Amino acid sequence: MSFDDTSLAQIDQYMNDAWDAFHVYRKKSLKERAALMRAIAVELEACGDALIQTAMKETNLPEARLRNERGRTILQLNQYATACEQGEWIEARIDTVIPDKNPPKPDIRKMLVPLGPVVVFGASNFPFAYSTAGGDTACALAAGCPVIVKAHPAHAHTSQIVADAIHTAVAKLNLPQAVFTHVHGKAFEVGHALVTHAYTKAVGFTGSYNGGKQLFDWANQRREPIPVFAEMGSINPVFLLPEKLKSSATEIATMYAGSITLGVGQFCTNPGLIIGIEGEDLKTFTHDLGKAIQKVQPGVMLHQGIVNAYKEKKSTALLQGEVHLVAESETEVKENEGLPTIATASAEAFLNNPVLQQEVFGPYSLIIRCKNKEEMLAVAQHLEGQLTATLMATNEDALQNEDLVEAVKNSCGRFILNSVPTGVEVCLSMHHGGPFPATTDSRFTSVGADGIKRFARPIAFQNWSNELLPEELKNENSLQIWRTVNNELTKEPI
Amino acid sequence: MSFDDTSLAQIDQYMNDAWDAFHVYRKKSLKERAALMRAIAVELEACGDALIQTAMKETNLPEARLRNERGRTILQLNQYATACEQGEWIEARIDTVIPDKNPPKPDIRKMLVPLGPVVVFGASNFPFAYSTAGGDTACALAAGCPVIVKAHPAHAHTSQIVADAIHTAVAKLNLPQAVFTHVHGKAFEVGHALVTHAYTKAVGFTGSYNGGKQLFDWANQRREPIPVFAEMGSINPVFLLPEKLKSSATEIATMYAGSITLGVGQFCTNPGLIIGIEGEDLKTFTHDLGKAIQKVQPGVMLHQGIVNAYKEKKSTALLQGEVHLVAESETEVKENEGLPTIATASAEAFLNNPVLQQEVFGPYSLIIRCKNKEEMLAVAQHLEGQLTATLMATNEDALQNEDLVEAVKNSCGRFILNSVPTGVEVCLSMHHGGPFPATTDSRFTSVGADGIKRFARPIAFQNWSNELLPEELKNENSLQIWRTVNNELTKEPI
Repeated sequence: MSFDDTSLAQIDQYMNDAWDAFHVYRKKSLKERAALMRAIAVELEACGDALIQTAMKETNLPEARLRNERGRTILQLNQYATACEQGEWIEARIDTVIPDKNPPKPDIRKMLVPLGPVVVFGASNFPFAYSTAGGDTACALAAGCPVIVKAHPAHAHTSQIVADAIHTAVAKLNLPQAVFTHVHGKAFEVGHALVTHAYTKAVGFTGSYNGGKQLFDWANQRREPIPVFAEMGSINPVFLLPEKLKSSATEIATMYAGSITLGVGQFCTNPGLIIGIEGEDLKTFTHDLGKAIQKVQPGVMLHQGIVNAYKEKKSTALLQGEVHLVAESETEVKENEGLPTIATASAEAFLNNPVLQQEVFGPYSLIIRCKNKEEMLAVAQHLEGQLTATLMATNEDALQNEDLVEAVKNSCGRFILNSVPTGVEVCLSMHHGGPFPATTDSRFTSVGADGIKRFARPIAFQNWSNELLPEELKNENSLQIWRTVNNELTKEPI
Repeated sequence: MSFDDTSLAQIDQYMNDAWDAFHVYRKKSLKERAALMRAIAVELEACGDALIQTAMKETNLPEARLRNERGRTILQLNQYATACEQGEWIEARIDTVIPDKNPPKPDIRKMLVPLGPVVVFGASNFPFAYSTAGGDTACALAAGCPVIVKAHPAHAHTSQIVADAIHTAVAKLNLPQAVFTHVHGKAFEVGHALVTHAYTKAVGFTGSYNGGKQLFDWANQRREPIPVFAEMGSINPVFLLPEKLKSSATEIATMYAGSITLGVGQFCTNPGLIIGIEGEDLKTFTHDLGKAIQKVQPGVMLHQGIVNAYKEKKSTALLQGEVHLVAESETEVKENEGLPTIATASAEAFLNNPVLQQEVFGPYSLIIRCKNKEEMLAVAQHLEGQLTATLMATNEDALQNEDLVEAVKNSCGRFILNSVPTGVEVCLSMHHGGPFPATTDSRFTSVGADGIKRFARPIAFQNWSNELLPEELKNENSLQIWRTVNNELTKEPI
């Protein structure tokens, strides 16, 4: 099944409609927005097996994974709907009037309000959770923003089925149709038209550095610049500290063989860099990881473009001076499969060659051998921004290497101890983000209900009568939300 | 007294020192940061009359205003120090482990951490409150970031005295000297070097659109883009609704004659646009405002550059078709003074001429005459982003003009009812910000303790032992801060 690109004239019309819908939708209560999100979750479930079958054909992902991912997408919609209603995310702050101050201190009340229509680009590696009804869409709808999704061309049919489910939910709740719009586009021009339209007020994206950076540049060159939340991947470094490595080299190797090859390595949290200090323990780890990787079956990748990019980037990495192959899967690889591969290089090579810091999207990881702790610290300080970083360390290791811990912490958005970076829990404490180039805005997350704040801005009401204030800021606090009143958090009325 | 521009080599050295200082300062506790801010407040007070005298000479601002502004600056430092210690701004979120979930849900704990060295550009119109030890500096220090201030050349000596006071506070607390750095620069290159340095991680600015937009563009063209918080002024529209205007035309005129000419109109919240519906009441208002303006004494402006810009922009505005002079101050104006001036134009002229939406920084305001409510709504929808907007309205006026209220709300960061926009209260509920071009990031405020968040980003700790976690996230909650634990706000330990 194929879909024609949406025309530029049609996009202009859609954005105008979205702008009109914005003026209706932003006035909807938190409960009404939550109801829409829950209705979308219900329709997504109701798509049944047909949706899973279509996604399997388009993405080559296995059925169990896709069922899980739909479950996660439904969970996100419901979890963010609950957060939307609870209303902590609107950051209500109230300072009441002090008439006898000189000059009198006026009554001021602040809350977050929606930015406007949000354009979301579907991600190729998460056809449900970061695509049409995914995390960005859920967050934007919670914030009060209409959403315009551009389907990822690699799973356009899957995207269309999900879009139809959202349309059904919107219609059932009698909301303006343009609260949600779905467009198709293989051509560069479609993305450009969406990002540069005057009525687009924010952009959500998960994908490659080149793609995300292009959207960011377009957005900042507009007459009115707009925020772009692009999650652009990462190499997710893993630091093996000496005491931990001595006690658990084999266990860590087994754990990481699994993490590196999970889902054919097609996660932005895939551990692409493992850093240790030269010696017998690192040799054991490298040997055991290589052995384990040899036994991993290659898997079919998302689409031929991803397979080709994996082969090309991996062979570029392997062609760099001082980079040596450690092991590959022993199973013969088919044209559309990704071959699990481990390589190694010295820290000196890594420090002097920016190519080795580039992401190789797929089941590949590079082991960096440091001469000593000082060189390991230099590697940590040399890292670009990362979604995640991991420390394999005993408490003693961590306490004795404070500079290293601080340097790694400074590079990443999520800092893991003695576990693997793959697997991103959907909860309020999650931060899925990180310093550039992991994302274009390190201050916001794309997983967890705090992601709602990406699509909102504060407004302060000064000297308003209670009757005219938004429900969230009225004296009564009928919504029973947490508010900071005269510098104290409370649910009490005023 | 004059100061040479800091050399580019020296700036590079300063930024390297600031980067080193960052690694020390960001580990300081919230209490230690607050102590530094309070110590700066004490030193600022200790500068005594000499500082006020110097500022009077450099800025032409009257003594009472400068004493007030220093008081406000001290208040900011102390108020943000208290907020820093209370720790709500770090947004601690904790989700504890659920081992029997499949897969097990790990323990995840999130908080804000500092971005890195922050460059602050002093503002010409607030030599204390938005300059060297002003709001941006206070917020960055609270967040855990070293600060590099570029003195505004128009009050370089004042800035140097304040910088010396900060250096004294830093030294008394035995902090690395480079926690605070002060540089001078009249040349374009100094600002460019500061914004584009690899170790600069954020920028704070208050000033003109051209200045702020240039910094924003430099920051986004870097290899690693960084956030710029530029507050670039506003025309702060005031909407006169019919019932309110009928009952209070004269009172409103008196109130606004004061607001328009306060501080010779040199506030970014100065009301530069007043919108009413044609008729007897608007004629009365226009007549009375004109009468009142005629009686206002012209005042000396900050410096000759500001006077020249005021004259030039005002005469450009008055030369536009359909713009007519209503009144000027009757007092003869001196070379360095700003002449209070009111003009008027039709809504049609305003809607068709972008020049009329440009800020004229000084004691000037333009009255827009609408034919009817529909035209007033069109003006509201046509507005660019604003720091503030004001509604002069009875409750009935507001309820009967919901579309207008919503359109105005959508344009601004602070929405005032029946008062004036000048006067920005320093409190948590304040939002001093607004959609572009009022600022380059509508999601953050430059007044109030929420401004601390501009200079911080979240990090999630996954699977860490209690011993190794930052104090703010440990089970004990020894700092007694509000934290969201398993989706419930609490101060309880875990």
